[in-house]
Amino acid sequence: MEKRIQNSYLASKVMPADRAAAEILPGMIVGMSGFTGSGYPKAVPLALAARIEDAHARGEKFALRILTGASTAPELDGALAKVGGIDFRLPYQSDPELRARINRGEIEYMDIHLGQVAQYTWFGFLGKIDVAVIEVSGILPDGRLIPSTSVGNNKTWLDLADKVIIEVNSAQPAGLNGMHDIYYGTALPPDRQPIPLVRPGDRIGEPYLRVDPSKVVAVVETHGPDRLGRFAQPDDSSIRIANHLVEFFRHEIAKERLGQQLLPLQSGVGNIANAVLSGLRDGGFEGLTAFTEVIQDGMLDLIRTDTIRTASATALSLSPEGVEEFNRNIDHYHSRVVLRPQEISNHAELVRRLGCIAINGMVEADIYGNVNSTHVAGTSIINGIGGSGDFARNGFLACFVTPSTAKNGAISCIVPMVSHVDHTEHDVTVIVTEQGLADLRGLSPKQRARVVIDNCAHPDYRPLLQDYFERACRDSVGKHTPHLLGEALSWHQRFTEIGRMKP
Amino acid sequence: MEKRIQNSYLASKVMPADRAAAEILPGMIVGMSGFTGSGYPKAVPLALAARIEDAHARGEKFALRILTGASTAPELDGALAKVGGIDFRLPYQSDPELRARINRGEIEYMDIHLGQVAQYTWFGFLGKIDVAVIEVSGILPDGRLIPSTSVGNNKTWLDLADKVIIEVNSAQPAGLNGMHDIYYGTALPPDRQPIPLVRPGDRIGEPYLRVDPSKVVAVVETHGPDRLGRFAQPDDSSIRIANHLVEFFRHEIAKERLGQQLLPLQSGVGNIANAVLSGLRDGGFEGLTAFTEVIQDGMLDLIRTDTIRTASATALSLSPEGVEEFNRNIDHYHSRVVLRPQEISNHAELVRRLGCIAINGMVEADIYGNVNSTHVAGTSIINGIGGSGDFARNGFLACFVTPSTAKNGAISCIVPMVSHVDHTEHDVTVIVTEQGLADLRGLSPKQRARVVIDNCAHPDYRPLLQDYFERACRDSVGKHTPHLLGEALSWHQRFTEIGRMKP
Repeated sequence: MEKRIQNSYLASKVMPADRAAAEILPGMIVGMSGFTGSGYPKAVPLALAARIEDAHARGEKFALRILTGASTAPELDGALAKVGGIDFRLPYQSDPELRARINRGEIEYMDIHLGQVAQYTWFGFLGKIDVAVIEVSGILPDGRLIPSTSVGNNKTWLDLADKVIIEVNSAQPAGLNGMHDIYYGTALPPDRQPIPLVRPGDRIGEPYLRVDPSKVVAVVETHGPDRLGRFAQPDDSSIRIANHLVEFFRHEIAKERLGQQLLPLQSGVGNIANAVLSGLRDGGFEGLTAFTEVIQDGMLDLIRTDTIRTASATALSLSPEGVEEFNRNIDHYHSRVVLRPQEISNHAELVRRLGCIAINGMVEADIYGNVNSTHVAGTSIINGIGGSGDFARNGFLACFVTPSTAKNGAISCIVPMVSHVDHTEHDVTVIVTEQGLADLRGLSPKQRARVVIDNCAHPDYRPLLQDYFERACRDSVGKHTPHLLGEALSWHQRFTEIGRMKP
Repeated sequence: MEKRIQNSYLASKVMPADRAAAEILPGMIVGMSGFTGSGYPKAVPLALAARIEDAHARGEKFALRILTGASTAPELDGALAKVGGIDFRLPYQSDPELRARINRGEIEYMDIHLGQVAQYTWFGFLGKIDVAVIEVSGILPDGRLIPSTSVGNNKTWLDLADKVIIEVNSAQPAGLNGMHDIYYGTALPPDRQPIPLVRPGDRIGEPYLRVDPSKVVAVVETHGPDRLGRFAQPDDSSIRIANHLVEFFRHEIAKERLGQQLLPLQSGVGNIANAVLSGLRDGGFEGLTAFTEVIQDGMLDLIRTDTIRTASATALSLSPEGVEEFNRNIDHYHSRVVLRPQEISNHAELVRRLGCIAINGMVEADIYGNVNSTHVAGTSIINGIGGSGDFARNGFLACFVTPSTAKNGAISCIVPMVSHVDHTEHDVTVIVTEQGLADLRGLSPKQRARVVIDNCAHPDYRPLLQDYFERACRDSVGKHTPHLLGEALSWHQRFTEIGRMKP
């Protein structure tokens, strides 16, 4: 096996994680790698957590502003949250410990579009990045970095940080070398140029990350896998949702609004997304493309069978079995997968140009087509908006999917009014539950309400929604978007009080 | 004065408006010109309204789906609404008669982003356009059309309609000739290419609209001005809002986040927008650019004095005095103004690339930075989202402005929870009232709440908002976005019941 650190100057910077972590001081803004549980630093955050715990034991204040690509893992978010080492976090998280502290009001969390983090940092809106902590899979003789399983915001952190700590993870597949495409053509307005990407697989940059060696204060060697579990097999509800979507795509092809190869797919993470992908494969689709954030096992399987011909993403989030398959057929994947910075994978310009079909999970939708992707009962955040807005608002279709009920039926995922809005009525084109699909294109609010209630609501809640809508149409002051303001959020309130939405 | 219809074939199609209107049959989808009260057809809609009235008198059904660029005038929306001739309308309106019928539930209205109408039509999402009714300012010998005071969606209606009716309005300035830039490079995905515009003033198309002469069923000659009133002088509240914004821009320049020439301005319509523009001029700004939807008198004045060097828009909405000034200094404006299709003036790709500073009015904002641009008390629509979302979500800054109260203080425009969301917490960066400016960049929800309440709320409502926020922080189930669900919309409910938000 090849040596992972081939640059002698950077090799001279190798040190243990705890010494590297000492470069990070209280109050700093730290940009870390990591996107959907892949490519996050494995050692320095743990060492940092230990330092913070010691400092707290001595009665010293020690907390940081932590910026990443997206979600990380217990070794990063979990460890730092547990010791009270994070006082501000963006742009996305999915860690139980961190989430609990955010919802207890102990940690400030800013939930923003993943495609906008890089430019907001360049604009100076998020403060100066003091330190970057970046996992890579190797260092070239000339000092350039072979990215790891995710690219995320690493280019931006490396470019803008005062100090850089590199983790070289020799457990990451050597085959990643050459798979990435790092675009160095971004600029600040008014000097921006068109981004020259017109197909999901286009390579517009270079395979490696640049770093100014004089900023590198530490290199840490690690050897550990991304901590990603295996996918569960899709359940019945997910399969029914997938079938509704596949049937809809067939209908759109028949109406000549979509070609046989659809348009580039963006698919959120998890069980339903996986079922949709399987549904496409089983439905005989071929030669598809993906322009998305994350390649998970489900999509890898479609790339293996050439159902998906080309996939662009910012992260490769694979289970141990997925990594094995990836390594086994590395040449196959090498010619079909491109990993990019998340500002490119999620870029408004490109999502609009390519006409992505965006398919994302949600917490709930209301009868008028507003979607809540983030909050339980309007107040507790689950994960975050992630890239769903980047894709939904600019793509060809904005599909949002959820089972029609949650918590064994105690919650209806179709409600009179969502308790938090992440995607507005202006942006949502398709809503799908296991009950059916609501095609909202070209409909007014009241027309949308009828199709959402009839097609998507669970039969246990459908009469309640019909009753609400009818009374709203009769008694609402304005009848463009009929609502009974005293009742609109009562389902959520009841849930918080008695644990179910029904009276 | 030159002859306005120089093509002999199209000259042979000249007929009275009532004969032209006879081409439009019940149930048709009609794409009409018109954007912010400019460039709408002056004669055919009135003749059509008369035909519809006659049909109704005979007991016949006669209603249409009407699509435009944006708002029109009483001669179009007002006249057709009054006779019950519209059963579906998109994408924007501001007519009192039409609005009243929408809010009584008599007309279905779809309120969508102005920058997406054209592509949604091309995608086939909005139905087949049966007839286009387009005002132009002249017809060239080769049959191409000199656009009028607005471009709007005219290119799309002309390209996609089965039949075309052209109104040639000889009262529109002859000097419009050559001022437009119609981009013919759009395509359907997956065949889209980058749009080659990198500066607001770039010309990337041709000055004229194309039309297939064989589709033209009628040409109607008109001679009447756009019906636009004169701007009121900015009131004290607008001037204070403008001053807060100008001071903020100065601060951003000092922090080197903006250059002396700022970035391309997008400014909504009306009194406050006008005051902001005046404030920039009075503040000594020079050589600015605008990449916006509409050029109104206020902006014309800035172009006259070279405070604004280049302005790109889709409509020239001028008062009679503005038109006089425009005609008087036509050479000056000709080299500084570009009028484009609204899919280009509002294009996500371009707004993002140019880094527009978006400044738009709103109905209300909530303490967490969600913005309602469209609805009174969640149910009655005022106008529509217009282009505010096109610019806010993709620009450099998304500024939303409003006086802190409305209806003589009966309404607070800062509320615990907005009654309708058009711009989410993820997208709003700056909120301004006459009380002050809240800079929301890089803040969590609770941090935003403090700055919105302290800086923007009216002193009469500030203690009520503070009280709500404090109790929510104490009693809310989740403390990421603290809310009291039973109370969150109570201010709006009280307003609908007793005419004021305060108990």
